[in-house]
Amino acid sequence: MTLKIALLPGDGVGPEVLAQAVKCLEAVEETFNQRFIFKEALVGAIAIDKKGTPLPDTTLKLCKESDAVLFGAIGDPKYDNDPDAKVRPEQGLLQLRKELGLFANIRPVLSHPTLLDKSPLKKKVINGTDFVIYRELTGGIYFGEKKLNEEGTKASDLCEYTEKEISRIAHLAFKAAKGRKKKLTLVDKANVLESSRLWRKVVTRIGESYPEVALDFLFVDNAAMQIILNPKQFDVILTENMFGDIISDEGSVIGGSIGLLASASIGEENALFEPIHGSYPQAKGKDIANPIASILAAAMLLEHFGLAEEAWAIKKAVDKSLKKGIVTPDLKENSQYGTNQVGDFIAHNI
Amino acid sequence: MTLKIALLPGDGVGPEVLAQAVKCLEAVEETFNQRFIFKEALVGAIAIDKKGTPLPDTTLKLCKESDAVLFGAIGDPKYDNDPDAKVRPEQGLLQLRKELGLFANIRPVLSHPTLLDKSPLKKKVINGTDFVIYRELTGGIYFGEKKLNEEGTKASDLCEYTEKEISRIAHLAFKAAKGRKKKLTLVDKANVLESSRLWRKVVTRIGESYPEVALDFLFVDNAAMQIILNPKQFDVILTENMFGDIISDEGSVIGGSIGLLASASIGEENALFEPIHGSYPQAKGKDIANPIASILAAAMLLEHFGLAEEAWAIKKAVDKSLKKGIVTPDLKENSQYGTNQVGDFIAHNI
Ligand SMILES: CC(C)[C@H](C(=O)O)[C@@H](O)C(=O)O
Ligand SMILES: CC(C)[C@H](C(=O)O)[C@@H](O)C(=O)O
Repeated sequence: MTLKIALLPGDGVGPEVLAQAVKCLEAVEETFNQRFIFKEALVGAIAIDKKGTPLPDTTLKLCKESDAVLFGAIGDPKYDNDPDAKVRPEQGLLQLRKELGLFANIRPVLSHPTLLDKSPLKKKVINGTDFVIYRELTGGIYFGEKKLNEEGTKASDLCEYTEKEISRIAHLAFKAAKGRKKKLTLVDKANVLESSRLWRKVVTRIGESYPEVALDFLFVDNAAMQIILNPKQFDVILTENMFGDIISDEGSVIGGSIGLLASASIGEENALFEPIHGSYPQAKGKDIANPIASILAAAMLLEHFGLAEEAWAIKKAVDKSLKKGIVTPDLKENSQYGTNQVGDFIAHNI
Repeated sequence: MTLKIALLPGDGVGPEVLAQAVKCLEAVEETFNQRFIFKEALVGAIAIDKKGTPLPDTTLKLCKESDAVLFGAIGDPKYDNDPDAKVRPEQGLLQLRKELGLFANIRPVLSHPTLLDKSPLKKKVINGTDFVIYRELTGGIYFGEKKLNEEGTKASDLCEYTEKEISRIAHLAFKAAKGRKKKLTLVDKANVLESSRLWRKVVTRIGESYPEVALDFLFVDNAAMQIILNPKQFDVILTENMFGDIISDEGSVIGGSIGLLASASIGEENALFEPIHGSYPQAKGKDIANPIASILAAAMLLEHFGLAEEAWAIKKAVDKSLKKGIVTPDLKENSQYGTNQVGDFIAHNI
């Protein structure tokens, strides 16, 4: 199989960790006789610096022509505390999601046996956790109309959803549940929000076509509690964009390290894979960032194209690095292994 | 001091737990020679059943004429899964907040030494946690315009904030931080939302009048992680309505029992005190609901009116019940003490 893969390293530690994922994909090419054509493009703060926009046209074009996008990280603190900034790195990612139609963000949440000690949660609470979050990614308050009055004293954001936006991701989530533990939990705030009531209505109706899947509902405030009180109760969680942003980051704490988590963002015609961690600017260039999330993003990419054996080879190599302690300092105090060495070790073990 | 207190028992276990808080206030009347005039009124699902509306005019009138409101709980599952319900119990609470101008919801988050084992979080993570959340309560997406198109295929909610709404709660939060550990964290999503950028701008400006308070910012997704990764880093958290709903419920897990947490909702002229737990309909009438949160809500009420000694007496009596294990089954498996007995014990120890 030949796959065209757009590489978008982005900001902060993005380039360093993405380079390790590429190493692993190159190892897969050799071992499994596949062919990946990599092309790189700018996105985020670095694209603003060099081109004046966080998503240059050439980058978007490259992504559209590629089979998949492998993304590094985005964001630079110099934009965060400037409420008047005209362009922001994050806009690049949001626009990319919208332009590529990546309406479903999929995040597995698992407890890693080797990392149970690193979690702030008790072992008995998290051991055996295995759920996946389906977050709507191109609608809701992220993309609704934004307003600021002239005096700068009143601001608003509109959270809007259509039946179509809800139903396409709901179908994906129900299908996922069907192939898993057959439970789907819709997280919403239907006791307050009109848009949540639409979610509840549409998802309930779609649920009738998946009689084998048990559907239940949880208000988002309660979900924020349940995810840490008893994460094992979940199988597939479906939710809208903003709630998904919050609870999937909350869920990322369970596994003991955010440095191990990747996500897939899927559309009709495109797909993007990325570590869930941010650009982590303090670590930039220090060879200490954990590359595993980025490497696992590459594994998700392979799975997406049916290359299950190849994906499995990457995951096995990652497991080996965890078991042998060939990991960055975030996972093992005083570890002497850097980003590059961990990447090399995993690539060599594929 | 004579205080007029409106009692709003509401739904589910609300009436049972509120009755225990009243017992304790009566004990305070006797011991400290204070005078409380209690008047009861309907709110929530029970008000819908009896009067057709979740907040009858007589209830609102009573609350406005009172010095404070002591609230039980609200909500009934029969309304939750009916997206077409015309009236909902929760509307009663939201309307009450709005009509009484209760713009600040204040929720302390503490780790209880006697309950460290009950928390899903590790002892070393939570031991010593002591922060307080200031949640804006009468603005944002809760009260913005709601729309549903005629075909029922498109729905929206508007999240709107004005400088004034932000600044009045910001001042309260800065003042609180000044009297505590002198740190204020604004939780927002300024990299995406226009309303969050307004929050950041206004809060930054107000911060200049509180030079002794260190101000920092956290995106809400990151906050959802930090609260469980390292809750001890926080002192005062300030945030908008919806984010506050989510992260304050998440924070409530830290202490090991939601049955112990109360909140105060404060306005210019009114104040409402309530347990943070919901109506817990499965437990209704079974004499198993934990009354402590409701009792501590009464203590917050006393504090609000400067009755520090009285509030302290309630808290000491609660501590005694925890230490002696005179608690409901949620805190001690197979406990034979019911809601009433725990309430009696605490009241007798005031
Ligand atoms: C960077 C930011 C805009 C983004 C989001 O909020 O969606 C990030 O937090 C994520 O979850 O991918
Ligand atoms: C009952 C509900 C409307 C309410 C809210 O969302 O504000 C509750 O969750 C709370 O936090 O007091």
